[in-house]
Amino acid sequence: MGNRTTQVGSVGIVVPKEFTFGTSTDPLTLESGRNLYPITVRYETYGTLNREKSNAILILHAFSGDAHVAGYKTEQDRYPGWWDPMVGPGKPFDTNKYFVICSNVLGGCQGTTGPSSINPATGNPYGLSFPLITIGDMVKVQRYLIDHLGIERLLTVVGGSMGGMQALEWAITYPDRVRSAIVIAATPRLTAQGIAFNAVGRNAITSDPNWNGGNYYGKDIPSRGLSIARMVGHITYLSEQSMHDKFGRRLQNREQYGFDFNDQFAVESYLEYQGDKFVERFDANSYIYISRAMDYFNLDEKYGSLEAAFRRTRAKFLIVSFTSDWLYPPKQSKEMVFALMKEGKDVSYAELDCPYGHDSFLIETERQGKLYSSFLENLYAH
Amino acid sequence: MGNRTTQVGSVGIVVPKEFTFGTSTDPLTLESGRNLYPITVRYETYGTLNREKSNAILILHAFSGDAHVAGYKTEQDRYPGWWDPMVGPGKPFDTNKYFVICSNVLGGCQGTTGPSSINPATGNPYGLSFPLITIGDMVKVQRYLIDHLGIERLLTVVGGSMGGMQALEWAITYPDRVRSAIVIAATPRLTAQGIAFNAVGRNAITSDPNWNGGNYYGKDIPSRGLSIARMVGHITYLSEQSMHDKFGRRLQNREQYGFDFNDQFAVESYLEYQGDKFVERFDANSYIYISRAMDYFNLDEKYGSLEAAFRRTRAKFLIVSFTSDWLYPPKQSKEMVFALMKEGKDVSYAELDCPYGHDSFLIETERQGKLYSSFLENLYAH
Repeated sequence: MGNRTTQVGSVGIVVPKEFTFGTSTDPLTLESGRNLYPITVRYETYGTLNREKSNAILILHAFSGDAHVAGYKTEQDRYPGWWDPMVGPGKPFDTNKYFVICSNVLGGCQGTTGPSSINPATGNPYGLSFPLITIGDMVKVQRYLIDHLGIERLLTVVGGSMGGMQALEWAITYPDRVRSAIVIAATPRLTAQGIAFNAVGRNAITSDPNWNGGNYYGKDIPSRGLSIARMVGHITYLSEQSMHDKFGRRLQNREQYGFDFNDQFAVESYLEYQGDKFVERFDANSYIYISRAMDYFNLDEKYGSLEAAFRRTRAKFLIVSFTSDWLYPPKQSKEMVFALMKEGKDVSYAELDCPYGHDSFLIETERQGKLYSSFLENLYAH
Repeated sequence: MGNRTTQVGSVGIVVPKEFTFGTSTDPLTLESGRNLYPITVRYETYGTLNREKSNAILILHAFSGDAHVAGYKTEQDRYPGWWDPMVGPGKPFDTNKYFVICSNVLGGCQGTTGPSSINPATGNPYGLSFPLITIGDMVKVQRYLIDHLGIERLLTVVGGSMGGMQALEWAITYPDRVRSAIVIAATPRLTAQGIAFNAVGRNAITSDPNWNGGNYYGKDIPSRGLSIARMVGHITYLSEQSMHDKFGRRLQNREQYGFDFNDQFAVESYLEYQGDKFVERFDANSYIYISRAMDYFNLDEKYGSLEAAFRRTRAKFLIVSFTSDWLYPPKQSKEMVFALMKEGKDVSYAELDCPYGHDSFLIETERQGKLYSSFLENLYAH
């Protein structure tokens, strides 16, 4: 156990990379049948690819995530990447040992081609002329990146929430390209309730007069609508318990009700802050396209049944859920575990008792860390 | 059991009534300390008050309800009142036996004074000059109505959701005026999550450019914002299971994904329809004021503790919750049951196994009906 003495550290300053592919004669064909080109992929890597190219880990981000998993963008950067406690020297995804990759998804707004990118046919941002995309399309773009990096087989694909959906698609679509899949707080399909929450967010955006049919680039953006969409989403990512523990019924800046419009509960103030902060970093059209990709996600429908979907897989699976996650609750993870077992696949399952709701995968990194590092060590040693 | 042979019927056409009280010298003093006058209360009654005035039942409506519980407004009216299966000859709240009253709440927009009413000081609608109100204020207005009807003691006060909050306030504030309280799908306080959902709805309304600081009467109304507020609310009233059973992942008007903006899931279409329908009958400012009254609701805070709140009550309680209600879940009802038991009060509790979420109190009327009618018969006979 040499790791015991390893210094745990940060990956430091990370310089993002870009990779572009796709031409008019060799475009990316999407699940819809539409073609798209060129496609730029923004990605980051941490650690070093070994000679055998057997130590590559692809991390897949959730709805509002990006390629910046760990470390800092600049010396002045105050906050590290979104899963920093998990990725670095001596950390669960140990960059002394593994080569870690993360890319911004297709349709995103953090460097990878999406609705805010320039449509080469017009010279203007795509807006709603960007084609509708799926989780499968995101994964296909990642496969181009992995090809580009010369990696034949990933040690693991790992992601939470929408990242878990991508990990599933990877294992099903490219069975020979992944040795394992860590699927966290995910679901085999978006439920009617999930679609409903997404629909509210989209309605908030498209009802904002600044949205202007998606044509707002270079003008006032639909910030109120996007902020409200984020507020709704945020509630679904937390549990009732974690909201209670964090805010309870505390007032913001007041001890007692004033019975006027300055009465504001701390939880309201927090949500509005989260909404406003989100607007600074996220594109409203990306919200529409990515949430729709999640709506479309349904393994049963795409492959005939969950069993049929998993039949083709060759990866070792680790499925993880959180007791307080009411958005993609444990029973949806268990459904996948049972289908994998039925197909005789190698699957482990962990249900972590954790109060933070769906966001547990981002917050509770200690137990997750132990789970993933031992899963990987075991796999990597053989 | 003479009821067995009673014909179950409709209350037929109901003519709403109005009662006005409050003057500059004798105003209604609100919990905030502010005075309000005049106050008009729109109400409906069904059945006949007996000579002893001992058969009066006050039904308390939920957030978006009104005084029109049962029967029809006109001969042409297609849909009956919101709890029609529960109120009528031979029905659980049997109008052959009981005198049933329901009034629109203070702050509402269905005939009772609220932000859309004319402010006598200006001759214009109140808008945001309407004072902030509480559940206690709604109940105080109802007490004026009960005084006006000459009823000393109500046989029962009964309501679901926000109606349950009012039933609680009645039993606590006017212990000598109620023989019993039926508290359905309620909570002793709004949780942080409940406040958060309300905050999203209010933000959607106030972000609508037509809202105009609440000054939209006689102009274009903030219909998009109000519609989105309703969509959010509606999701919280249903369970994941009931949404799945009703809509699943069905598309509206299509068999297969078209991967274009005409793809719409049935659940999206339903929510948008519900939102649009709501706008026709509800005032955006009422949404703001009533949701805030619910945010303020907290029996512990108001009375020191839940036990202290219930200590003063003299009513017999029937508390009812629904297994699938995740907005005001059974554990919140049980908390009240335990507090009542601790204070030695007469309390019965029923947790109904029902898939319809918070809205179960409106949808599942058969088991509720039996429960309430036997509770009342037993009470009325003694």
